[in-house]
This record gives sequence, structure tokens and C-alpha cells, in this order.
Amino acid sequence: MMPTTTAPGGQVGRSVPRLEAVAKVTGRAEYVHHMRLPRMLMGKIVRSTVAHGRLKNIDLGEALKVPGVHRIVTRDDLVKVVPHPYYGPAFHDQPILAIDKVRYVGEPVAVVLASDPHVAEQAAQLVVVDYEELPAVFDEVEAADSLVVVHEELKPAGTFPDLKHLHGVRDTNIALDFRLCRGNPDRAFADADYVFEHTFRTQQVLHVPLEPYVSIAETNGLSMTIHTASQSPSFVRLEIARLLGWPENRVRVQVPFLGGGFGGKLYIKLEALVAALALIVMRPVKIALPMEEQFYTLTKHASTFRIKSAVGKDGRVTARECEIWWNGGAYADIGPRVSQKSGFTAPGPYDIDNVKIASYALYTNLPPAGALRGFGIPQLVWAYESHSDLIARALGIDPLAFRRKNLLRNGRPQATGTVVQDMGADACLERVAALMQWDAPFDRGASPVRRGRGIAIGFKASISPTTSVAVVNVSADGSCTLYCGTVDMGQGSDTALAQIVAEVLNIPAETVRVVHSDTDVTPYDMATLGSRSTFHMGHAVKFAAEDARQKLEALAAEVGLPRGSNQPTRELFMRKYKMQAGNIIGMGSFIPPYTPPDHDTGQSDNITPFWMVGATGVELEVDTETGHVRILKMINVADVGRSINPGIVETQLSGAAIMQLGFTTTEKMQFEAGQVTNASLADYKIPGFLDLPAVIVNEVIDSHQHNGPFGAKGVGESGTFAVSPAIANAIEDAVGVRITSLPITPEAVYLALRASRSGAIEN
Amino acid sequence: MMPTTTAPGGQVGRSVPRLEAVAKVTGRAEYVHHMRLPRMLMGKIVRSTVAHGRLKNIDLGEALKVPGVHRIVTRDDLVKVVPHPYYGPAFHDQPILAIDKVRYVGEPVAVVLASDPHVAEQAAQLVVVDYEELPAVFDEVEAADSLVVVHEELKPAGTFPDLKHLHGVRDTNIALDFRLCRGNPDRAFADADYVFEHTFRTQQVLHVPLEPYVSIAETNGLSMTIHTASQSPSFVRLEIARLLGWPENRVRVQVPFLGGGFGGKLYIKLEALVAALALIVMRPVKIALPMEEQFYTLTKHASTFRIKSAVGKDGRVTARECEIWWNGGAYADIGPRVSQKSGFTAPGPYDIDNVKIASYALYTNLPPAGALRGFGIPQLVWAYESHSDLIARALGIDPLAFRRKNLLRNGRPQATGTVVQDMGADACLERVAALMQWDAPFDRGASPVRRGRGIAIGFKASISPTTSVAVVNVSADGSCTLYCGTVDMGQGSDTALAQIVAEVLNIPAETVRVVHSDTDVTPYDMATLGSRSTFHMGHAVKFAAEDARQKLEALAAEVGLPRGSNQPTRELFMRKYKMQAGNIIGMGSFIPPYTPPDHDTGQSDNITPFWMVGATGVELEVDTETGHVRILKMINVADVGRSINPGIVETQLSGAAIMQLGFTTTEKMQFEAGQVTNASLADYKIPGFLDLPAVIVNEVIDSHQHNGPFGAKGVGESGTFAVSPAIANAIEDAVGVRITSLPITPEAVYLALRASRSGAIEN
Repeated sequence: MMPTTTAPGGQVGRSVPRLEAVAKVTGRAEYVHHMRLPRMLMGKIVRSTVAHGRLKNIDLGEALKVPGVHRIVTRDDLVKVVPHPYYGPAFHDQPILAIDKVRYVGEPVAVVLASDPHVAEQAAQLVVVDYEELPAVFDEVEAADSLVVVHEELKPAGTFPDLKHLHGVRDTNIALDFRLCRGNPDRAFADADYVFEHTFRTQQVLHVPLEPYVSIAETNGLSMTIHTASQSPSFVRLEIARLLGWPENRVRVQVPFLGGGFGGKLYIKLEALVAALALIVMRPVKIALPMEEQFYTLTKHASTFRIKSAVGKDGRVTARECEIWWNGGAYADIGPRVSQKSGFTAPGPYDIDNVKIASYALYTNLPPAGALRGFGIPQLVWAYESHSDLIARALGIDPLAFRRKNLLRNGRPQATGTVVQDMGADACLERVAALMQWDAPFDRGASPVRRGRGIAIGFKASISPTTSVAVVNVSADGSCTLYCGTVDMGQGSDTALAQIVAEVLNIPAETVRVVHSDTDVTPYDMATLGSRSTFHMGHAVKFAAEDARQKLEALAAEVGLPRGSNQPTRELFMRKYKMQAGNIIGMGSFIPPYTPPDHDTGQSDNITPFWMVGATGVELEVDTETGHVRILKMINVADVGRSINPGIVETQLSGAAIMQLGFTTTEKMQFEAGQVTNASLADYKIPGFLDLPAVIVNEVIDSHQHNGPFGAKGVGESGTFAVSPAIANAIEDAVGVRITSLPITPEAVYLALRASRSGAIEN
Repeated sequence: MMPTTTAPGGQVGRSVPRLEAVAKVTGRAEYVHHMRLPRMLMGKIVRSTVAHGRLKNIDLGEALKVPGVHRIVTRDDLVKVVPHPYYGPAFHDQPILAIDKVRYVGEPVAVVLASDPHVAEQAAQLVVVDYEELPAVFDEVEAADSLVVVHEELKPAGTFPDLKHLHGVRDTNIALDFRLCRGNPDRAFADADYVFEHTFRTQQVLHVPLEPYVSIAETNGLSMTIHTASQSPSFVRLEIARLLGWPENRVRVQVPFLGGGFGGKLYIKLEALVAALALIVMRPVKIALPMEEQFYTLTKHASTFRIKSAVGKDGRVTARECEIWWNGGAYADIGPRVSQKSGFTAPGPYDIDNVKIASYALYTNLPPAGALRGFGIPQLVWAYESHSDLIARALGIDPLAFRRKNLLRNGRPQATGTVVQDMGADACLERVAALMQWDAPFDRGASPVRRGRGIAIGFKASISPTTSVAVVNVSADGSCTLYCGTVDMGQGSDTALAQIVAEVLNIPAETVRVVHSDTDVTPYDMATLGSRSTFHMGHAVKFAAEDARQKLEALAAEVGLPRGSNQPTRELFMRKYKMQAGNIIGMGSFIPPYTPPDHDTGQSDNITPFWMVGATGVELEVDTETGHVRILKMINVADVGRSINPGIVETQLSGAAIMQLGFTTTEKMQFEAGQVTNASLADYKIPGFLDLPAVIVNEVIDSHQHNGPFGAKGVGESGTFAVSPAIANAIEDAVGVRITSLPITPEAVYLALRASRSGAIEN
């Protein structure tokens, strides 16, 4: 029944099959949705039906008559157990249940509790809530100057010192206003041969993990255990402890496997709600959202990006101005960090001396937006790489040549001033070009089906400074267990981190057991996000394994056995303890060096421990009669440093690219007065197998991150970066029309084609 | 809702209320009996009805017809998942289910599984088992030479190297034969002024924890989790891994609170059975024994002790010969260690130059016997302290004076040759004498109610060499969590160990959270037994806390903060990580030095890291017409080193003494052809409140164990040592009759009185 093992040696760089594969394909992997606890109540959320309004009376009369209803909880019960029920990673702006106002359609107002979830659902429909409706604002650009103010007061969470100054009463919807200035952009624009300016937009989309949000809380009033589908158990522990006024060590957060996260399951989602409910009823409480309710929980930022470049006759970009409006929805979640952490890469991976960036995190009356695979980068790349092709095309320069001319190379400063190291932008671009045979003749077809090809490249900084701690435990029989808070949500972290342990301890990776996140068990980890785990936790795990190895060596010396020979580890323990007893515990922790950006200029000499690069090339055909686009070939190339597990890296690239393909071509949350009108997977279309490119190639460049564990760095997002603009660029290459708003639906292409035809452009 | 805290400082030596008190008195503490898992099946054991026999046919026909029966598991299913299903800490002699033979009435033969435990119970009564009955042996002395051989072959477990030579086919019931010889006993006996020889017997009794045995196993075929009421989770992990042929890191053993253990819940009890069942049916399986079935699981050794002393005219004991037969029942469990580890203290805490010990662990056809609070010591003290009084009385010496003359004092060698240190035998004896006002006139009453008083003293070595490992985790808010495998079964270990952490880190003990045993979470600990935790785990915890303190100091230095000032710990983390992040992990492990006894002579220069001493004085009255004994006053004094928590130490002493009071006066397993005839708490009488002494005083002497953590050593058993002989000595003092077999029932006293009267002795 045990997995077969191979001889040790060369554990890093080997495509070890995922440790959890057997458990998953045989249906034995544990998820929170499976969990049932004795006396557990199921909660059904009653949600706001208005986008912005004052909360008046909540009438529970009819709902309470439904047989089997245990209790219906509203703000009145809530504040008895959590006097200040506001949470959030950046601002304490989001109430556990609506208190005075509601700010989006779908906001939780009450929860019906019953043993039978169907009873809870039935009763939830009978709760009658009165609102005094207020004017609402939905568009991010309008929100910047709107008289409608979504939040009248802001309380920075305190976790990020640079947000502290935002505390207080406000008359704006701008939650954070990130500014960067480098060089002298005004003069450069004045001196420019050409100035190009375009505006691009992206739509609000969803994470759609196949496992919807789910959390369970159980408490005895003295301590609390939360079982939750979370990417950030350490944060959940901290935040629940803060909300309850308890020390951390009375709150335990357990996360088994995750059925996908993609940034949606970060920070607090249902956890504060179930915690409060469990304290109110003193029984375990579970809330498991159906797929539809994910549309009311967290989304990806819609955005508007105005980009303006000064370009010389030679095609060199001399200055760039970026203004980005991020539609954060009703609650900030981590949106302000998206505005800032991604904002500073808005000019793209280009070597531009004069740069000006303004990046605004905005409140609107839409469902909240936060992190989603790429953390804002795909929205930025969509704009700057569409812009690149528009400039190149306007100047008659080949798009590849234009990029080559302007590319940011190692040793040169990025817009923050940080000098770039180990960023393989040029290698990625060249590899995509080579795989596409960019220089070979390309058949563009003939009407009605035209063919085109496009190329794009994006980059991203890592999230910094963040901390990971790991423990490696060697048992008396030599078997080894890794404790780390990284959540395996399908990305393969269990396997990659086990490989690091195995490499250090010279044992087969398949024999390393990885204990899943449990804040009472696994040490602190900031969160599983931002492609940080391989680098940050990878370091901590490596240090922990090295610490264990050092202790094993000391033990061997102590008992007079030469280590590294054929002597099995268990013999060391037998000699020391005279029986099979004891264990060795190795500990490692890691935080990379970091310099925060200057508040006024956005400058920093060390803005990130590493850079991620993703480039995509696309060949496609467009049916000019229908607007349908068919992707013939997609090539994704990334710089991930050294691959710990090449097989998993490849699936990470393809998974990311396909996810972004959905955001590019089909997915969009449709709204009517703030109400999502397509909140179901029947109406909201994610890619299926038939939507995939006929050919998809995923490659990494030969690379070594000098400060990475075994030369590795992150990979989870790189495949998303360049997909959207590569497709738009290929469409223009094929049919000469430029799409500037996502998604690129057949309707959008058809309308653009019709407009271009009526504009008498030859097709 | 949080417990109130006091200012730090003086955490050790303070009677901190038990950390779990609120959870326990409000019914919120978690026990395995409460646990229900989805799809869980309940198992009911079908038990042997013969004491010794070959197992023939098992007819499941009628049982399987009971509606709701899921499956009935026998040896045939068992060996498919566990090919070699024999377990045990000393010998692999005990089958998970009977394979070829049954060896006692009550041995598990089959298990009925059903969702409803009542269905399982009903069906279990319909299983028909055929046996070929074999002659049986029950008495330990008879067993030594019997032609009935209970085990035809022995397989030492390998955990104890000194048992290895016992491997193989055998024609004896002696599982282990411990010998010790010091000086020249033969010559001393030849030269003696007087020789006294007596034989004493003890009966088979039971642990009777209020929480009966219970275990749950769940598995996905790749890993296994066992929730069990166990004192030895690390051992369970090792043994289950061995039985399944899995590495340790695929087996997880979780223990919540224990409702008492007393040595019964050590090693494997139900765990191997539920593990095998879970693998067979691939569903969670729980077996929860009713109180009655505890009588078939583990007991305390019945024993026969022949003790012979050479005594000079001055009352000095010059030589002592001890021969002890330990009735181990059908399976060895830890019995051979009782024979040896307690055997070497059989001459008592006396300074005797010439000693000869033979201590036999015997197999019989009774339910297995193992560790029970005292680990054989109370049986030995019963004999040697009854013997002391008989000698003193025969020589006309005051019993206290006789003991003073012969007492083993620090700096003198014990029978093993180990020179005694930090053993307060004299102080304990003197304190009992002082509290009893031994030198004051004592009113012995008049018929029919006579009064008497008695004194006794016993001692015990600690179990060695054994290992403990602990982890102390300091969270970013400064709150602290202790991970250690010590099982809090009511003895207060959570509180005492938290006090050690608190003392080192200078925080209130009430704020330290103790994470309960979970082999995936808490590091290795040999087991919670033998009063070893305060000393062994206490050391490991102290080291772990010191390691954490050192790391906190290093962190303080790193971030430029002076440690020890008013600077809160959380500030260190904030400065280092720029947010509330990270944690500090301190690790400690401990194994004391030890020299195993020489195989032939039993000699060792370091047989134990510390000695425990318990002395008891009793005043009682005997109704000479009925034989009823009423204890007027009981005084228990022990040497526990420095008390970590004086309040808990006192309850440990009184609890132990009251437990031993039951074994002394009422408790006895009655057998008929190997069948227990009083297997219920209606017929087997444990002490109730009305049975308690009118006055009970529990004290510790002023003491400091030089090598103990903060000067402490163990306390859990010391109160049991001297209770039985103190009572018997007081009875002889009152009415002149000597009881030599336990229990001292009214019937036994009445019969002794009648016999003494017919012998014309004045009463």
C-alpha cells in the first residue's frame, strides 16, 4: 500500500509524482466539505439585495416558523460576542455581518442555522430585510471623483505600516493612491518624437476554485478550532484572535487539502462568521457556499489603465506614464496591495528612464476584489503589451524587434530603481520567438478565416518582506516528516517541498510525509500566495532539513558512528536511546531582505527578492463572418529559476495560461444595478477541454536564481501574465482590429470587425 | 472568557489551578468516548469462554443474520492485513485476535462491526466458537513448574536488548527470571543470630479508570490516524507502524484528555485491533469497552513473595533473600519489566550488605497483568514492611526503632550497588513518626473495639533510560504553546509543565497553552508512566523553554531591543518582520545517564536517575466481633524533591493512597476456572467516600533533587507504597493477628481473630 520509492540522490530537479496523487484519484483526500462534526449546525447566509443602503429592520418572524430552524443570527447577536466585528488584511473595513450599511448586492446580513442545510436555505428566503437605499457607484473611474462615498471612515489594519496614514474620516473612494516617479517624465514627453496614449480595460471575473468556500468553527468558549479551506491559516489565526481579543495560542486553524485557491481563499472569508456563530450557539457551525455564492465573496479587479509613452524615431521608449484605476468593490480585502505591489511594474519589463505611475485602489458598490493568480499583473500586461504592439505597428517596427530594443535587462534599474538581477526577460522572449519560428514566413490565410500571431511578455515582483518557518522531524525509524504551513491547493507544494527535504537528507522524496497546515502543528507561514512558497518556504524547509542533518551528524558523532556511510538512521537512535526512541527536530526560518518603496517617489534599492517572467506567443485564426477566434498554438515560456520538479512546473504554466485564457475570451461577471446576473457556471463560462488551444507548449528557460533554494523561484502565476495581449495582438495581426477591453468574445471581435469595415478598412 | 492571570515570577512552586479545570468541570474537555466520525462502525468483541484451548471453528451464521451487522472479523480476515499480528512491549506474544490458541477467559476472538453498537452487541452473543480445551494454570507459584505451558515460543520485542536471549521455543512459564546477588548471603545466613522467613501474597486487581478503554482508527489505506485513550502515544505509533510494515510517519496517534490511566492504558490495548479493523473495512472503527470488559484487558500482578532475613541480636539485618513470583497472566505486556525494575528493590529501603533476589515473571491462564501505579512496588512493600514488623515484634524492638536502625541512607549502596543520593527515606520516616506522635502514649481501646497503629516505608527507582522531547513555540503576539507527548490523565501534568515553561520565560503559567499528545504534532516521549514525566519531560520542557528564551534574546539583540525590560515580546516580532508574523521554536530533549544491571549479579553503578520514597502511618480500630476495620487517621509523607505545584502534589499523594487503600481492603478479582466472577463495579468494590480515613494528612518533606528540573522529581506513585503494610501492622498492633494476604477484608480479619482465639491467645 506504500508508494514505491527510488534510490535517493538527485531529488531536486526530478519529476517526482505528486505525493497526494493516489489519495486524490482514489477520492481519499480530505477536504473541509467532507467534514461533519457532532451537533454541527449548517449556516445559510441571507444576503443584501441592494448595492448600497442603510440597514433598517430585519424581520425574522416568518423564517423562525420553519420547523428545524435552530436560530437566526443578525448584527444584534454578533456584537455581543465580537464587539468590533470588522476585519480585513489592509483595512478593518468589512463587517462579519452588515451593521449599519450594506455596500454591495450579496453582502451577508443574517445567517440561518439549522442541522439540515435545506431547512436553513428555506428559512433564509423568508427573512425580510428593510433598507434605506443610497445612490451607488460601480465604475472604478467614476468612483474616483464620485459624491457617493462607500466608506466614510477607514481603519488601517496595522499589519502594513505604510497604510497607517490613511486612518480617519474620508470623502473619497480612493483607499490607496500609489505614486511612483523616476527621472523626468514631463521633459521626456516634451522632447519626444512620438507620444502614444491608449486606455485598456479589464472586467470583473472570478477565481472559480472547484471547491467553493467552506469553513467550520468549533469552540468550548475557551479555545476555538477552525477548519477552513484557506490559503492563509496563520493570518486566519491572527485575525480571529484579534477579533475575539484572545491570544493566538487559543485559536487553532486547520486546513486539509484545498480544491484550488488562486488567491480567493486568502485572509478572512467565512472564518470570522463561523467563529462568531459558534460562540453564539456554542455548537460547531459550518458554512459551505454553493458555487453561486462565490460570486458574492471575492473577485478579480476590474481595471482601467491609461498608458502613455514617449517614443523616439528609433523606437526607443523614453518615458511612460501609467494611470491605473483598480475596482476594489465594496471592501478593500488585499486590493490596496495589488494597487501598490503590482502598480510599480505598470511600465512593463522595459528599460525606460522616465516613469510616472499613479495607481488607485478604489471602493465601489460591487462585490469585493482581491488577489487572483497574478495579483494585478495580467491586467497590467494586458495594457502595456497591447500598447507595445500598437506603437510598433504605428512605427512600422516588428513587434519582436520593438520589444528587443526596449527590454529590461539584468544590471539595469527597474522603475523602482531596483537593479534587476536574474530576470530572464530576454531569454523568455527569444525562446517564444524561436518556438514560433517568428522569422519564418507565416501564412495569414484568406477570408473568411484569417490567421495571425502575437507575442507578449510580462513580469512580476515577489511579495516582500514575508516570513516562513518550517520544521523537519526525523523519527527513530529514520522516517521523516515535514511541518510547514504552505497549503497544497493543487500547485504541488507538498511534493516540491518534500523534494527539498529529501535532497538535503539524501532520502527518496516519496518517503517524506508532509503535514498539512494546522496552526497548532505547523509553524508560522505568511500565506500561500504570490508564487512565494517555493522561494520563501523552500528556504525555510531547506534550513530546517539542514538543521536536522547537522543534528543527525552530531548524534552520529556522539554514538561513534560515521555518518553518510551505509549506517541507517534508525541505528543512531538505537545506539543513543537503547531502544527505538527519540526524534530529531530541525527548524528553519526565512525572511528575505527588502527595502520598502519611498512614500513619495516609489523608489527602493531592493523591491523584491526575485523577478518572475512569463512570455506567451499565440497563433490563431479569426472567423471574420462570426468573430469566433480559434487558438491554433499557444507557447508559454517562463523563468522559474531551476525547476525543483519539472513535471509540476509544466502543469503550473499550462494551468495558469488556460485560466487566463478564460479571463481573456469568455469570463465576465455581468451586473445590473450591482446585481450579478450570471451567478452560475451555466451562465458564467470557464474554459472547457474544447476551448483549449490545439497545440500548447510550456517551457522554462535554463536559469538559476542566485538567492533561491537550489536556484529556484516561484512559478504559480507566470503563465497568466502575457496570454491576453498575445491573443489581442494576434487578432490585430490576423484581421487588423484592436480590442482594448476584455473579454475578447466573438461578439466583441465581430463588432470591431463591423466597425472597421464601416470605416472602410480592407480586410 | 479567558482565564485570569497573575503577574509572572515564581511560577514554579506555586499552586497554579489546573489549566484544564474549567473545561473539565463544565463538561467541555474532549475524550475519545465523545468522538464520532462520519461512517464510523462500532466494534463489539467476542471473547473466549475458556481459559486455555485450541481455537477450532468460528460459526458466524446466526450472528450475520442480525439486521444491521456490517461484518464480523476473525483471524482469517486479520492475517490478510496484518500477516504477523502479535504485539507487546516486551514480547511479541499477544495476538490482535486469537489465532491458534486462546490463553484466558475473555481473550478477543472475533469482532462484530455495525453502525449501531447495540446491533453489534446482540450479534456478538450469537457467534459460536468451538475450542479444544487444554489444561490451564492459574497460580503463579504452580506456574513456575507446571507441565501446562502457556506460550510454546517467545519472540522478544527487541525494544529491550536485555530480553534478546529469551528468544525461542520453551518448556517453562517463566518469561523472565531476574537475579541479583550482592555480598555473601549464604555465609551471612549461616552466621546469623536469627533467621526470619515469611511469605506474603497479593491478589489480582484492576486499574478502574473512570474512562474505560476506547480507541478509534481511521485510514485511507495510505496513512492511519488512531484516536485513543493511551498513556503512550509514541509507543502506539511505533508498534502500529511495525505491525503494518509502514514507516512511523504514516501513522498518527492522537490522545485528547484521559479519564485516568494508572498504567492500564500503556502500550497496545485496543489500538492494534481497531487499526486492523479499519484497514479491513476501510471505514473508521471505534471500540469502546464497557466497564465490565476492563476486567479482561489488563490487571495488576497477583504475587507471592517469600522473604527471609538474617538478623543480629542488635536488630541489624545482615542478609536478605527475596523470591518473588509475579502472576503475569496470559500475555507478558510489561510484566517482565515489573519483575526486574521493581525486583531489584525487593529488600526494601534498608542498608543490607548481603542480598539475593530472584524475581520471576510468569505466564498463567489469567487476564494479562502489567503496570499499575507503583509498578510492583506496593506488592513488594506489602511483604518487606510486614516482615519488618514481624521481626521487630519477635525481637521486642519498637517497629520505628527497628527501621531507624536498618534504614538505607544517602551515600550508602542500594542492593544493586548504586550509591543512594537525594533519597529522603529517613526524613519521610521521621516525619510520619512525628505526625503520629509515635513516642506519645497511645490508647489501644478495649474489646470489642481495639485500636492500633502501624508504620511502613517503601521506595522505588525511576524507569531508565527513557527519553522525552519537547517543543516550545512563541507566537508573534508573545503567546506561548508547549508541545509535549506527556498525557494529562488527571495527574496535572499540563499545569506542572506549563509552570516550567512559564518560569523560564517569565510569563504567567495560566497563559501557556499545552497541546495534547498527537504524534504528528508533539515530539517523541517514551510514555506517561512510572512518575517519570515531571523529571524527564520536565527536563525536556525546561531545555525547550531555555532554547526559546535564548532565541528571543538573540532576536532582541538583532532588532536592537534590550530583552528583559518592559518590551513586550510581540514588539520583537514586529521589528523583525514588519508585521505580526513569524514565531520562535525552542526544542529540548532529555535522557538521563544509566548503567544497566549486570546480567548475572544485577549490579549497576547507576540504576536510576532518582529515588522515590513514600511512608505511611495509620491509626485504626478493629471491631473484634465482626472483623471490620475503620481507619481513623492516615498520614502519607513522600520525598518528591521540590514541588512544582504543591497543591497538585498533595492530591497526587492522597489519590495514590486512597487507590492503594482499595487494593488493601476491598478489591479483588474473583475467579472460577479462570472466569472472573465479579466483573462489575457492583461486585468489585472500589473505595467510596464513606471508606476514606476520617483524617488523612499528605505531606512532602523539604527536599531538592540535585539533578531534577528545578529540584523536582516524580510523585505519582509514592502515595501507594506503604499503605498496605501500615494497615496490616496497625491491625497486628490492635488485635495481635497478622494478615499475610491481600485484601484485608473483614472476613479475613474475622477468620484470623477466630484462629488466634482458638489458639487461646488473649484478646
